Amino acid sequence: MSAIQHQNFSTSISSSTSTFLGKTEFKNIKTLNVLIPSKISGVVKCVASPSAEKTTAYKTKVSRNENMAKLQAGYLFPEIARRKAAHMSKFPDARVISLGIGDTTEPIPEVITSAMSKRSYALSTVDGYSGYGAEQGEKKLRASIASTYYANLGIEEDDIFVSDGAKSDISRLQVLFGSNVTISVQDPSYPAYVDSSVILGQTGQFQKDVEKFGNIEYMRCTPENGFFPDLSTVRRTDIIFFCSPNNPTGCAASRDQLTKLVQFAKENGSIIVYDSAYAMYVSDDSPRSIFEIPGAKEVALEVSSFSKYAGFTGVRLGWTAVPKELLYSNGFPVAKDFNRIVCTCFNGASNIAQAGGLACVSPEGIKAMQNVVGFYKENTDIIVDTFNSLGFKVYGGKNAPYVWVHFPGQSSWDVFGEILEKTHVVTTPGSGFGPGGECFIRVSAFGNRENVLEACKRFKQLYK
Amino acid sequence: MSAIQHQNFSTSISSSTSTFLGKTEFKNIKTLNVLIPSKISGVVKCVASPSAEKTTAYKTKVSRNENMAKLQAGYLFPEIARRKAAHMSKFPDARVISLGIGDTTEPIPEVITSAMSKRSYALSTVDGYSGYGAEQGEKKLRASIASTYYANLGIEEDDIFVSDGAKSDISRLQVLFGSNVTISVQDPSYPAYVDSSVILGQTGQFQKDVEKFGNIEYMRCTPENGFFPDLSTVRRTDIIFFCSPNNPTGCAASRDQLTKLVQFAKENGSIIVYDSAYAMYVSDDSPRSIFEIPGAKEVALEVSSFSKYAGFTGVRLGWTAVPKELLYSNGFPVAKDFNRIVCTCFNGASNIAQAGGLACVSPEGIKAMQNVVGFYKENTDIIVDTFNSLGFKVYGGKNAPYVWVHFPGQSSWDVFGEILEKTHVVTTPGSGFGPGGECFIRVSAFGNRENVLEACKRFKQLYK
Repeated sequence: MSAIQHQNFSTSISSSTSTFLGKTEFKNIKTLNVLIPSKISGVVKCVASPSAEKTTAYKTKVSRNENMAKLQAGYLFPEIARRKAAHMSKFPDARVISLGIGDTTEPIPEVITSAMSKRSYALSTVDGYSGYGAEQGEKKLRASIASTYYANLGIEEDDIFVSDGAKSDISRLQVLFGSNVTISVQDPSYPAYVDSSVILGQTGQFQKDVEKFGNIEYMRCTPENGFFPDLSTVRRTDIIFFCSPNNPTGCAASRDQLTKLVQFAKENGSIIVYDSAYAMYVSDDSPRSIFEIPGAKEVALEVSSFSKYAGFTGVRLGWTAVPKELLYSNGFPVAKDFNRIVCTCFNGASNIAQAGGLACVSPEGIKAMQNVVGFYKENTDIIVDTFNSLGFKVYGGKNAPYVWVHFPGQSSWDVFGEILEKTHVVTTPGSGFGPGGECFIRVSAFGNRENVLEACKRFKQLYK
Repeated sequence: MSAIQHQNFSTSISSSTSTFLGKTEFKNIKTLNVLIPSKISGVVKCVASPSAEKTTAYKTKVSRNENMAKLQAGYLFPEIARRKAAHMSKFPDARVISLGIGDTTEPIPEVITSAMSKRSYALSTVDGYSGYGAEQGEKKLRASIASTYYANLGIEEDDIFVSDGAKSDISRLQVLFGSNVTISVQDPSYPAYVDSSVILGQTGQFQKDVEKFGNIEYMRCTPENGFFPDLSTVRRTDIIFFCSPNNPTGCAASRDQLTKLVQFAKENGSIIVYDSAYAMYVSDDSPRSIFEIPGAKEVALEVSSFSKYAGFTGVRLGWTAVPKELLYSNGFPVAKDFNRIVCTCFNGASNIAQAGGLACVSPEGIKAMQNVVGFYKENTDIIVDTFNSLGFKVYGGKNAPYVWVHFPGQSSWDVFGEILEKTHVVTTPGSGFGPGGECFIRVSAFGNRENVLEACKRFKQLYK
């Protein structure tokens, strides 16, 4: 079954077949019947059918947010988690290996956990207790992030807003910009940009023929253009989401390319939301921050995270840097409104996580994070070598923990399904990141060494 | 200076005089001049003047979100923190006591911090490491919250969405409902309801004459109506924010009153967003959950938090219970869309905080939380007795950690200023919670005993 058919199937039954349905029995909603369609790609999907409702259930008179109804199927990663779970029920004895969701697997270095542990204990003492912190994050952490990641780039303590992770901040940024802006995304790209844009009402309906939402500019990134969009064909939008090193392609934009991007934004008066969550994976001369590009502070803000450096995917800590130079058309500083969003819609990251963040950016912590990053980069090399040896065209990997493998002419959901079925390895179908991801799968290098080696062994058996 | 004058002052200069301005020097924005108006209530305010910009600064072509421009002054609590800081600079030797912001002060019980500490350390081990958790929260925690707070109320594990706190979830709920809904709030009420509604574009402009935003229904809560609105005069809205025990009035709605509220919502087809963050402070027969009211599951969801039970204001952990029975007008379950919001705009609460949450709802943890709550309730009694003895009309306190003191005919910002100036005690001006809070101040019972006794001693000196 092709990705397009899959998409159509999901939308024809319900516009919101999220994982929730997979997990929930809705015992108390007698009015919702459950359709069990025949097996699709080895996965049984249970989808609620609103049309089959009885009329006895009380309904409020509140209209469902029409933007929510525009969303397609489930958010990608819960959907994959659901398919993994379904596979595990089908093959209870299989050793399933996940190189799918991009979740870190290496333990957090002790220099960091001991700081969090100490902070936890201190909260039981009169001197160590602290309640509400500054919504923007602890002063010392903000200063340390600024000096660690933006030394000499003109980003200062008060430009840093500490968050509970990049995904939350992306949504807060969408709330900041509001419903009337237009956005561009790399195609393929991390799905949270598009989905949060849809939720905020910035887009039109999903157009099934092209697998795109109306009013979003999809900047195609392909092997042919070196995974950097041809900006001469890109329509102006207010906001440009740009992730480098990129999730999912694993490719980092060069200094020259980012200089063009900043110039493009400046000519158009656009704001770049630069996602640098994988910056520490850069091995070559590619910039680690958009602010390395002269003039970027007037057209860009940057979202980042400790998740993939320190294994903080579960601890939850990130930040957003909003330069004072970034101004709306009326001259009002973007940072001032973002500060207001952070104060109104958020109450600061957990103080324990912030203690961990402070340890992360200590000299020992930085070294420990570099070791973690180095370990995953070795995994990346193993995966790249494996697919290269099997004759595949392989992209990414050099500056990112993601390997982007080309399966020309094949549906990425089909490839995902075949790999899962035959090797019990979870990957991510490229089309989950946008139509430009079709014919690719993303293989994540987050895994312990034994699992990565075992997965690669199975890939070799499948594709020999 | 009256509260109304204060409001006008803030808006005439800038529509967003947040704390950000107070903290930020904007060194690099040469185009922003800074006006230093004369002293106002003892506080120097630095306000950016967009009109004074030079034309040389680059501006993007992105329009400022017009909803952000509607917001008034700073979000209340950062504003109070700023005034406290200004007072401390003016009186560097004063022992300033904060009974203002509602921030917990008692250390977290060890049964809870030791669980967080252990979880932190475990993250450095292969067996104890965990990355991304379920966006909705850990299964065991969801189940324990359901059985602890909703036993026999028909709220189950999968109805509970664990969050990083009630404030964040209130904004996520606003994103869920979208721009086209109408809302009601108690007047006075916790400012996050109104401010997040403004940000989402649900409201009209701020109407200075009545100090209300257009299109919001303010349900007046006064001593005369026992702080429960006269529903016969309330206009129908889609969403009704209702907090009980109430912040700021400290009054809990009775079973009879909440039954009327549920009936009112059902007749109007409205959804109640019930904020039960202070439920454990209830001493009498008042319901601790809206779901104690028969039929509430069809018209209500409930937001709650560990902040005021376990001292988690800095740790950040809360939850929202969304019953499966709660349906939009088209029969679509609200919970399904909220699940999608949680999966797209959030990545779960910190796993360490969740370990703490699990300890909170253990038998020892519940006992420890009850002790914490009991301690603050003793503080409340001391504050109530003090103001009673001084001849004030005092409300709240019985079922909540807030005491609501009446100063008939006086501006609450004036009273706030006078108390701060003369006793070095920070309170909260009632009008910060809406026009219905004018002539009141909120005194928080969160403080250590020595400080509460000292503050009460100073109140007695001031008002003897």
